[in-house]
Amino acid sequence: MKAVSNAVDSERLWDDLMALAGFGAREDGGVCRHALSSEDIAARSWLIGKARERDYSIAADDAANLFITRAGRDNALPPVLAGSHMDSQPAGGKFDGAYGVLAAFEALRALDDAGIETARPVTCVAWTNEEGGRFHVPCTGSRAFVSGAVSDPAQTDDAGISLESALRSTLDAAPDIERIAPGFPVHAYVEPHIEQGPVLEREELPIGVVTGIQGVRWFTVRVEGEPGHAGTVPQASRKDAFQAAMRAIAALNTLMADTDDIVRFTVGHLSIEPNSPNTIPAAVRFSIDFRHPDAAVLDERGGKVADIIAEAVQPCTADTQLTTSLEPVAFPDPVTSAISQAADGAGLAHKPLASGAFHDAAHIASACPSGMIFIPCRGGLSHHPDEWAEPEACTAGARVLAGALAQLAETN
Amino acid sequence: MKAVSNAVDSERLWDDLMALAGFGAREDGGVCRHALSSEDIAARSWLIGKARERDYSIAADDAANLFITRAGRDNALPPVLAGSHMDSQPAGGKFDGAYGVLAAFEALRALDDAGIETARPVTCVAWTNEEGGRFHVPCTGSRAFVSGAVSDPAQTDDAGISLESALRSTLDAAPDIERIAPGFPVHAYVEPHIEQGPVLEREELPIGVVTGIQGVRWFTVRVEGEPGHAGTVPQASRKDAFQAAMRAIAALNTLMADTDDIVRFTVGHLSIEPNSPNTIPAAVRFSIDFRHPDAAVLDERGGKVADIIAEAVQPCTADTQLTTSLEPVAFPDPVTSAISQAADGAGLAHKPLASGAFHDAAHIASACPSGMIFIPCRGGLSHHPDEWAEPEACTAGARVLAGALAQLAETN
Repeated sequence: MKAVSNAVDSERLWDDLMALAGFGAREDGGVCRHALSSEDIAARSWLIGKARERDYSIAADDAANLFITRAGRDNALPPVLAGSHMDSQPAGGKFDGAYGVLAAFEALRALDDAGIETARPVTCVAWTNEEGGRFHVPCTGSRAFVSGAVSDPAQTDDAGISLESALRSTLDAAPDIERIAPGFPVHAYVEPHIEQGPVLEREELPIGVVTGIQGVRWFTVRVEGEPGHAGTVPQASRKDAFQAAMRAIAALNTLMADTDDIVRFTVGHLSIEPNSPNTIPAAVRFSIDFRHPDAAVLDERGGKVADIIAEAVQPCTADTQLTTSLEPVAFPDPVTSAISQAADGAGLAHKPLASGAFHDAAHIASACPSGMIFIPCRGGLSHHPDEWAEPEACTAGARVLAGALAQLAETN
Repeated sequence: MKAVSNAVDSERLWDDLMALAGFGAREDGGVCRHALSSEDIAARSWLIGKARERDYSIAADDAANLFITRAGRDNALPPVLAGSHMDSQPAGGKFDGAYGVLAAFEALRALDDAGIETARPVTCVAWTNEEGGRFHVPCTGSRAFVSGAVSDPAQTDDAGISLESALRSTLDAAPDIERIAPGFPVHAYVEPHIEQGPVLEREELPIGVVTGIQGVRWFTVRVEGEPGHAGTVPQASRKDAFQAAMRAIAALNTLMADTDDIVRFTVGHLSIEPNSPNTIPAAVRFSIDFRHPDAAVLDERGGKVADIIAEAVQPCTADTQLTTSLEPVAFPDPVTSAISQAADGAGLAHKPLASGAFHDAAHIASACPSGMIFIPCRGGLSHHPDEWAEPEACTAGARVLAGALAQLAETN
């Protein structure tokens, strides 16, 4: 494990990260690489070209998930899988997703360079459309891998191009790689990723061993009041929808209070109608983003949201809709301990950390033991052109990944 | 006074209101009649035509204020003036402004029909651009009447047409009426208007004797926080600009609390950046509309606004700007008592009422003793296509106006 960690080539990995960031580069330093776009197709072609420089097998499935496999001693055994996604947010950065794919690819080369043979094959994967920026249902690839089929292939992007057609174009652009059906047995899956949060940077830790991905409840709320002239209607006669929304959000702040600071509660979107300085707000729409690693907490507090709002907005009225509900995922010990041991082996400090954001690993976790490695990113910033991870941080994560993969590829 | 009140012709007044609402009629029943637009010019021409059916003199000044004068016994005496404005909000109603002009015109005809001679001339006025919907600085006409000149004639509408040019077009469309300089001595001014608030309707009173127009302080506030991922950033590390704005507005609610319910405090506009459900708000802008009839209260509470916000938004920061400051206007006894007596004479119940909204009378009050008559409007609704005043309410206000004008036109 130590040998393969030491074989990770910092400069090679960094050069790859910067090269990949060139596909869909924005003038502000960020990246816009929508799934299955010409930029994504070019990026895939570039990675396939690099895989061909080594003795790796290359395949794609119906969801255009790309698999680059380093053979094991027994290629009938289910492989160990590692990677992430190559698509970005429209105003995204150089690291979200891209880092996981390239760290996995670097781990394959480190195994080569360290002269290590593994029992199982080791596969680098790039999942299709994790972000959902172009085709709005995210995680197209990892969901298809688990379910065996691409969901809703008729959905279209803003230009009216269907997902099915965009997948065909992408697959047709690489006609000479093996074509496989979605889903195959996997021994374990590891996804390296920037943290997208401030904890590792703040605590000056190079590695987060991800314990799981928290669950989420998304709500949209519409509060109905009555418009009126700001100068004339007495306060006691008002049905001010914004003041009602404030009362509702204050009550939700109380509901969501958590001395352990594990609850995540955010009102990120709010709009007033008519939104005129001298008109009493007639209606307000706002969003609720509520996350927690414990399904019982999600159910218990989430179940109270609508009633608390209805009570607080009186004499206005409110309509509260649960729009998204995702259950928490816990990563199992064989994977988390392989990551911890690899970090120890590489002399890198680490701590357990729950993931606040979604990842492909949340889906793959239902198919095989899965886990994630977090590395610090500057200011916790992500989904932003200024997203940044230091070269040493990128190297550290790849070293831990390579060690963990080497171990997992030997286990039964 | 009773004779002239009784001479008010309900049907004639209502027919005029509906005819005027035809100029700029909207499909939803409302009115869009921007100042100095072709619709406004056509409406003026219609009113001039009706004035010519009687023996009235007609004049316009540089601000295109339109004056229709019924002669008195001594035309060297300053006239008694009554009216309002003919321009509307873009999605306005049939009564705001229009009612005041047509009630004044009806009062002139009622004086005729009752065979009453007055010592002073009585003049119906239509002030230009009270609403500020097209040229954004409101009360162009009444301000010019007081100051003697049109302010900022070079200002342009959204199509790039200057106020100066729009005034010229409007004046040129009525070449055969007398052209006068802005401002002349006036004995008293009375402006009838829909209440634009719910008090008279709720209390089932036909007449409000307006005691004055409250003052106003307008502020805009920008709160700066830090964006972040809603799933990853711990609550304790957040600088959530929306939560900070909520704390500020809650503190302002406390500052503005008033058991007498005279303070008017409204946050009507609020916008979040980036306004995405899963991003912690980076910045918030909101408006404050604070009104009160007492300048001391405006100064005292208004003076605390910025400090209270700065304190409440911590650890975020805030920039609070006072954008508009208008002092309260008190209407003097000679006018308010003439209105009360006219209402008594007509057998109409009345109560004193402060105006929450601005009116041309706020400006004219600095040139001569002024006052206003309010009539109830449905649900207090105004600046809306559904704005509505019942025919009987319109008649009642015109009867009181006619009586008050008859009295004021006899006094020294």
